[in-house]
Amino acid sequence: MTLPELDAEALYQTLEAQVKQELTGTQRLAIVGIYSGGAWLAERLAQSLQIKEIGFLDVSFYRDDYAKRGLHADVKPSHIPFEIEGATILLVDDVLYTGRTTRAAINTLFDYGRPARIMLAALLDRGGRQLPVAADFVAKIIKLEENQSLILKKADDGRLTLTVDHA
Amino acid sequence: MTLPELDAEALYQTLEAQVKQELTGTQRLAIVGIYSGGAWLAERLAQSLQIKEIGFLDVSFYRDDYAKRGLHADVKPSHIPFEIEGATILLVDDVLYTGRTTRAAINTLFDYGRPARIMLAALLDRGGRQLPVAADFVAKIIKLEENQSLILKKADDGRLTLTVDHA
Repeated sequence: MTLPELDAEALYQTLEAQVKQELTGTQRLAIVGIYSGGAWLAERLAQSLQIKEIGFLDVSFYRDDYAKRGLHADVKPSHIPFEIEGATILLVDDVLYTGRTTRAAINTLFDYGRPARIMLAALLDRGGRQLPVAADFVAKIIKLEENQSLILKKADDGRLTLTVDHA
Repeated sequence: MTLPELDAEALYQTLEAQVKQELTGTQRLAIVGIYSGGAWLAERLAQSLQIKEIGFLDVSFYRDDYAKRGLHADVKPSHIPFEIEGATILLVDDVLYTGRTTRAAINTLFDYGRPARIMLAALLDRGGRQLPVAADFVAKIIKLEENQSLILKKADDGRLTLTVDHA
């Protein structure tokens, strides 16, 4: 199956431009990336927007289908080193798909406190939603088969690439 | 402030047409209304689509801002008399606003089991989202001031009306 060109670096620039336009100057803005792809994107967004409040979530434990998916060997601890209460959180994921990861991430954030607002940024929206979740910022909408998955990778020099895997 | 004509009955017909077009024939479809306005809409949708699996949620207890809003005297018990596990749930609310009610309703549904999918229908979307939630079906998008609230009422003859309250 042919796929449109997926230049992860170009998509990141599109996403960053959207976020900058909308959120520059936002009071108490914090950025939280979902491991692993969302964490890389969050780091770059935080640097570009000069946001010091940055955190990371691994929601593998919290997804409702945890029992079915099992635990990857590389699960990382969540790390939210700032006050969530009253903050505007930009939650960052690489690919928005069913919405179950987003739900798990939102619930985990609420475990830390009650944010004023949570917005969602994703590099790609591949459709296939199973929960009524929508991204506030998305670089590209793409249609994939169910047995395909998008993988964001980071090279040693920091460059991001996207590949499509077939199950 | 002038407001566009809000004919609740006409809006309901619009919503019902959308839902019918998209969901007629869906396997294991259940409808869950959020008290009180969403419950009235859910009853009518279930009747029109001939869906026997219908439930009701009161999320007053579950909203994250429960402590701030307090408890209304007329809080009703949630009632989900069917198997949630594996079902497609059409969640019905009267007005979609911050998304906090939707989050609470989704979490309450997951307390009962793990649905295959949850979709959201709302009569009105008034913007002002504080969580990345979106309706799958909405009859009308409307812009309101923060101090305004939309109230759906049901007359003795079952007729629905919408009024705007000022705080």
